[in-house]
Amino acid sequence: MALRAGDHSRVAMNGLKEKVLTLDTMNPCVRRVEYAVRGPIVLRALELEQELRQGVKKPFTEVVRANIGDAQAMGQKPITFLRQVLALCVHPDLLNSPDFPEDARRRAERILQACGGHSLGAYSVSSGIQLIREDAARYIERRDGGIPADPNNIFLSTGASDAIVTVLKLLVAGEGPTRTGVLIPIPQYPLYSAALAELDAVQVDYYLDEERAWALDVAELRRALCQARGHCCPRALCIINPGNPTGQVQARECIEAVIRFAFEERLFLMADEVYQDNVYAEGSRFHSFKKVLMEMGPPYATQQELASFHSVSKGYMGECGFRGGYVEVVNMDPAVQQQMQKLMSVRLCPPVPGQALLHTVVSPPTPSDPSFAQFQAERQAVLAELAAKAKLTEQVFNEAPGIRCNPVQGAMYAFPRVQLPPRAVQHAQELGLAPDMFFCMRLLEETGICVVPGSGFGQREGTYHFRMTILPPMEKLRPLLETLSQFHAKFTREYS
Amino acid sequence: MALRAGDHSRVAMNGLKEKVLTLDTMNPCVRRVEYAVRGPIVLRALELEQELRQGVKKPFTEVVRANIGDAQAMGQKPITFLRQVLALCVHPDLLNSPDFPEDARRRAERILQACGGHSLGAYSVSSGIQLIREDAARYIERRDGGIPADPNNIFLSTGASDAIVTVLKLLVAGEGPTRTGVLIPIPQYPLYSAALAELDAVQVDYYLDEERAWALDVAELRRALCQARGHCCPRALCIINPGNPTGQVQARECIEAVIRFAFEERLFLMADEVYQDNVYAEGSRFHSFKKVLMEMGPPYATQQELASFHSVSKGYMGECGFRGGYVEVVNMDPAVQQQMQKLMSVRLCPPVPGQALLHTVVSPPTPSDPSFAQFQAERQAVLAELAAKAKLTEQVFNEAPGIRCNPVQGAMYAFPRVQLPPRAVQHAQELGLAPDMFFCMRLLEETGICVVPGSGFGQREGTYHFRMTILPPMEKLRPLLETLSQFHAKFTREYS
Ligand SMILES: Cc1ncc(COP(=O)(O)O)c(C=O)c1O
Ligand SMILES: Cc1ncc(COP(=O)(O)O)c(C=O)c1O
Repeated sequence: MALRAGDHSRVAMNGLKEKVLTLDTMNPCVRRVEYAVRGPIVLRALELEQELRQGVKKPFTEVVRANIGDAQAMGQKPITFLRQVLALCVHPDLLNSPDFPEDARRRAERILQACGGHSLGAYSVSSGIQLIREDAARYIERRDGGIPADPNNIFLSTGASDAIVTVLKLLVAGEGPTRTGVLIPIPQYPLYSAALAELDAVQVDYYLDEERAWALDVAELRRALCQARGHCCPRALCIINPGNPTGQVQARECIEAVIRFAFEERLFLMADEVYQDNVYAEGSRFHSFKKVLMEMGPPYATQQELASFHSVSKGYMGECGFRGGYVEVVNMDPAVQQQMQKLMSVRLCPPVPGQALLHTVVSPPTPSDPSFAQFQAERQAVLAELAAKAKLTEQVFNEAPGIRCNPVQGAMYAFPRVQLPPRAVQHAQELGLAPDMFFCMRLLEETGICVVPGSGFGQREGTYHFRMTILPPMEKLRPLLETLSQFHAKFTREYS
Repeated sequence: MALRAGDHSRVAMNGLKEKVLTLDTMNPCVRRVEYAVRGPIVLRALELEQELRQGVKKPFTEVVRANIGDAQAMGQKPITFLRQVLALCVHPDLLNSPDFPEDARRRAERILQACGGHSLGAYSVSSGIQLIREDAARYIERRDGGIPADPNNIFLSTGASDAIVTVLKLLVAGEGPTRTGVLIPIPQYPLYSAALAELDAVQVDYYLDEERAWALDVAELRRALCQARGHCCPRALCIINPGNPTGQVQARECIEAVIRFAFEERLFLMADEVYQDNVYAEGSRFHSFKKVLMEMGPPYATQQELASFHSVSKGYMGECGFRGGYVEVVNMDPAVQQQMQKLMSVRLCPPVPGQALLHTVVSPPTPSDPSFAQFQAERQAVLAELAAKAKLTEQVFNEAPGIRCNPVQGAMYAFPRVQLPPRAVQHAQELGLAPDMFFCMRLLEETGICVVPGSGFGQREGTYHFRMTILPPMEKLRPLLETLSQFHAKFTREYS
């Protein structure tokens, strides 16, 4: 565990100089950052894997990482077309190889033409390769039924994470009661809380309604806002749709209500839409904030500031390692947009292979292309399997007494609520652990299943959850869900 | 140009709501960031290129971008082995292809084995793939004559830029007179000034000695430190070696003196060594701060905190677009190191293709490998040509009256000093431009040559410089140098 502040004075007595950089002297904002998705549970999972490799006997033979939304790590195969194009871009000697379909070759040539020195090895302009920004604009237009998108409002990024932090960074200002407040959902994706801590902004929590399938309620937004106005200056509202960790897909009316609220209350909207391709439930559909905003007409369409984020990490492609993504800004002050451009230029540019991959995503094969059929089949297979897994997860959990799981309408996660017996809660508290952390740790030690406690995402006081991805392959997912349910029953008996 | 603060009130009178995010309300630290390498000169160069394409007549037929250290953008070919390995990693179907040498295939398999789901598309652990950190440690040991390196002290990053900003971020604390001060060289690489502005830390300038080939003088460090102690708390010292923009390579004695100074004054050392493979001058050799530190023995070797940065963007590989890099930390407080790990985990991981590329750099083919001969030949060819261009650049400039250029001992830039006639200086000031910005703009407009004014990097008051890369291909470099010298002569006549 971390050294306690003050401990190092002992070191100093040994005749050594104190370190310049210690827990006491380091950036206090960084020290305050918490990040559960890769926290102690994951470190312990790593250790257990090592022990298994060394032959240590365990009650399980394998650690299953259901803690992070990383499809390919769980065995999902990359989409062939994407990788063909990228291999050609990486090693253009292959452009003459007959092993690649003609449209992949054409595509790679088009990307390379747009690169400095016709190589992925050159820096791009900081906001990303112009061609790819243009194609991303066309993609957004198709998605939004023809509503125009301007490539100049699109900035490519190092995964969506980078773009989200960049926009938050622009928004942060003030001190004391004028410090920027940012409304984020609870439960949230902990990038938000971490970035706000690092930037020394005020995190303003609004709660999603678990009883109504994690719906977003404007009355709750209003409550959160009013309460926050006493001690900070709320200036932005973050929405994650489809939701992580909660898996809900927002209804169109809800999005309209949120936009009206943001407009009236003068909040900059940040729409995290990285799961826009991951919608499974019957009756659910993805509506982009941009489209709804534009269809609402003036003054919303002409004035409400919005940033919408997308990524190559999720969807059907699951290309997390490439760190590709973009943000589209709408109605942003042009002078601020220039500042954003400048800020991005300091880090030179997003990774160009990720940009190239994004290109294949925003501009996929069309029906007349030789790769179309295979691309389409692979894409559908991934999405259909995810839909089946979403359904199965909800089902199995809801059959288990003491576990209740909202429908996984979209994204890649279930966030079931678990009842924990009072004695287990008490025992956890004696150990200095959040009760659901205690539950998840025990689960990991006894079954090898790695999930993240709800406390890492935020939840209503006195409720307990865990987040599990639906990504393990079907043949592993079913036993995993059953083992987990059985463990919960056993845990409950043990502490009753 | 940017809107002035206050201008938007006019907009508000038109019945529109004011924007939430304006120059007035945005993060003031971000607003203060300056970044010359991609500043107005580069924007104008882009416009000129567009005009040329549209057939607008200019006194030149091509814009030559000598503004940024991007070798492949200037036509340098990627090293074959690197791209072969990477293509195999991207598209493992190729592993059975006879077109790839056996060692490239073995290498790709080794990298993929170390990736989640055996794919570049999975997130890696936040500090980078363990295998690659281990091989980076072996690389550092070979470089440093066997001095041990611990993979646990190596963090892979999104280019060196990312790692530099991360370490600075850890160091920033305090307010008013206790605010963190960071010593940086002048002239500097403007990432440093930009990051310090963004983080609201105090930039403490120490001047390199142009009269002694941009040497670093400890007396000057002491002057800068003493002066800074009045108004901030200096806690770190940045060194760029080989230097950007100045091209000097530090002597070993100088590095020893810097280390002693940092130790006595309790400064965290940041050694930017991204040009460690780029040393050309006879008698110059790269000495890593880590090696010198270790060879100095205790208390330096055991106590002095150091972070050393490296990148795949420079050297002989020039793979800027991949955004690969790493930092090695030495003698860092383990609790702080944990905090650094946590901070990196918020952004999930560095781009995995960049990590894979870094692997081939830290673990290049050895003499028994089939790819060795070609790899070695390509590497040498690149470095030999850079050395010839460094020599040529210095020579041609020093033949021009009114231009004086220190030897380009290393890195990829010349930073010549130019005499500008007083009337030109006055004219520039009337236009509200730095005199060397005026010179560079005129140069661009009349010759198509794009270089960056010295004012973007910092220089002694009353001196004028520009930074030019030595990267244009030989057949373009010579005429470029001559055109530039002639333009300077003409400019001088015009304003005399
Ligand atoms: C809601 C949400 N936003 C953003 C991200 C960041 O994704 P990336 O940076 O890989 O694009 C994630 C990743 O899990 C996420 O779940
Ligand atoms: C001195 C120095 N440090 C760091 C960098 C950053 O390089 P990258 O982020 O591409 O690794 C550069 C790039 O030009 C540089 O010149």
